Amino acid sequence: MVANMFDGPTTTDLDPAERRARLRLARSPRIGPVKFHEALQHFGSARRACRDLPVTPEGEIAHEEQALGKLGGRFLIFGDADYPAALAALPDAPPMLSAIGNVGLPARPTLAIVGARDASLAGRRFAADLAITLGQAGFAVASGLARGIDAAAHEAALATGTIAVLAGGIDQVYPPQNERLQHAIAECGLLLAETPLGTPPIARSFPRRNRIVSGLSAGVIVIEAAERSGSLITAERALEQGREVFVVPGSPMDPRYGGSNSLIRDGAILVRDANDIMSVLGKPQSRPQAVEKPVQIPRNTETATVLQALGAVPTAVDELVRRCQVSAATVAEVLLALELEGRLERHRGNRVSLI
Amino acid sequence: MVANMFDGPTTTDLDPAERRARLRLARSPRIGPVKFHEALQHFGSARRACRDLPVTPEGEIAHEEQALGKLGGRFLIFGDADYPAALAALPDAPPMLSAIGNVGLPARPTLAIVGARDASLAGRRFAADLAITLGQAGFAVASGLARGIDAAAHEAALATGTIAVLAGGIDQVYPPQNERLQHAIAECGLLLAETPLGTPPIARSFPRRNRIVSGLSAGVIVIEAAERSGSLITAERALEQGREVFVVPGSPMDPRYGGSNSLIRDGAILVRDANDIMSVLGKPQSRPQAVEKPVQIPRNTETATVLQALGAVPTAVDELVRRCQVSAATVAEVLLALELEGRLERHRGNRVSLI
Repeated sequence: MVANMFDGPTTTDLDPAERRARLRLARSPRIGPVKFHEALQHFGSARRACRDLPVTPEGEIAHEEQALGKLGGRFLIFGDADYPAALAALPDAPPMLSAIGNVGLPARPTLAIVGARDASLAGRRFAADLAITLGQAGFAVASGLARGIDAAAHEAALATGTIAVLAGGIDQVYPPQNERLQHAIAECGLLLAETPLGTPPIARSFPRRNRIVSGLSAGVIVIEAAERSGSLITAERALEQGREVFVVPGSPMDPRYGGSNSLIRDGAILVRDANDIMSVLGKPQSRPQAVEKPVQIPRNTETATVLQALGAVPTAVDELVRRCQVSAATVAEVLLALELEGRLERHRGNRVSLI
Repeated sequence: MVANMFDGPTTTDLDPAERRARLRLARSPRIGPVKFHEALQHFGSARRACRDLPVTPEGEIAHEEQALGKLGGRFLIFGDADYPAALAALPDAPPMLSAIGNVGLPARPTLAIVGARDASLAGRRFAADLAITLGQAGFAVASGLARGIDAAAHEAALATGTIAVLAGGIDQVYPPQNERLQHAIAECGLLLAETPLGTPPIARSFPRRNRIVSGLSAGVIVIEAAERSGSLITAERALEQGREVFVVPGSPMDPRYGGSNSLIRDGAILVRDANDIMSVLGKPQSRPQAVEKPVQIPRNTETATVLQALGAVPTAVDELVRRCQVSAATVAEVLLALELEGRLERHRGNRVSLI
């Protein structure tokens, strides 16, 4: 049994002036994460750094913060109490993150699940099975919201807690195939983005996003990584960050496992099932609330309404949508969450019942 | 580049009296391999041991040796110059072996390829590809002549050199599905058996046979080993014998790889292709004759006749059989050997030509 391995001295919230200064410093064009931390070190505080350096005007920051607030989000700033502790340990910790959703999730022991966009059905199924078991054991599941393995892991962990790190701004829907999932994570999990609102995801943002996915996590689980794939780079960065790398093996005849098998050959931990991960990292000390309260965070009245309308007698999903006066998408998310927990049974004619 | 890792001081042939005494001692009912070596140690020679111990009468040995000779075989006796050097290093080295075929093969660096009897088509294909590449690089390929992986490896290595170790006597055809292959190995490769002629293969002979397969080899390659399978036991014995264990990984969702993945997790070397083996063991110093003289050991006039009848113009296989006055099975073996070396092209209407 282990606690979050990144437990450390609790940081207190920053005073408002230092907070604003850190935001201005972080959003300055030529100041990347490493420069940000150097400036903090050199000047002793962001306030003093802002006096001497050409930083972004306060107005721009206020404007972005307002826009984020309208989306239901807020900034997590390096040094704040709610800034993810695991990330703070990185030498290139993001100076700030936009966040929408449950900002308490990164306080849980977190595992990343990453892999191929063009994953096999079997690979996606395996990712989902792992995400469900690890989620129920108390881990938050982090990934990059890509198609394939990422999406399968997020979706399966919606009910227990999942963190998606975006390569673009937090208001950018990407990839388009995962639009519904992205909204569901904002609702039931946590969306994080390092780049400012309005920034489209560009090529060089993806490896930077990946360092956050692994940085949030005690370990990274790699499923179906081909040679020279992005998931391989994530695994290598994870090792540099001192994270465990867990890899699901596959046939050498399947090129989707070329990188995976190379990682294992180079010493990564082979994964046959969730126990192979928990035997290394231990089980979280407390199981997530979701296990006691079966469906997590029906955070608005709509989802609560759907839950109440469900019972042991099969009900048509269409009727559920009509009766609850809730969008079909919201109903679908709640049903999925219940199903993944084994509490929902599906019947012929698109009817469902609680078990 | 490595030589045979078991090269050591050359043993000279035993004198005829000691040779006969070792055979009598070895075939005595209550004397297993370990007891045999203890007796040799204690008495200083088998001749002296035979004076004091109740051993098998000389007549029985002469009778078995005669029967073996009629099959074209002979005994390899511990201490003889042609006894496999790698085997001699084992504490439970077989005191004697029946051998039919090319007794020079074990002098080459040898690799065992073992795995599931109920192997997948992909697994058998992978075993064959490895056997061809390793055979062409100069390794002899050893296995246990079981269905599935064993048979695929033997068959693919017929052209370069393969060693089959039988659980029963060398005159026992087992399993029946591999009868043709067993004859082809006697012809082009090497059959070995520890148990006396006429002994049917019984359950406890198989693990004893497996220790010889791994004992002959610098390393054991495991393909498709389920949990609690015989191949797993072979791998464990190989580790005890100080042999390398190489394992081909597979999906954790495929139970045929349950044992394989466990071996890798416990530290066995993951294999993606033949290079993963040769990067550990090196390449043999000299390539086998088969590479210079394309088809190895047409050791009798029949096979030589088939070879001469082949040319660049497609010939019907039926005609080949008629023209050469050789059995269809022999023709098929020669064609297979040529095909595996990439020197034979097959055409419609069961016709073949040399490339």
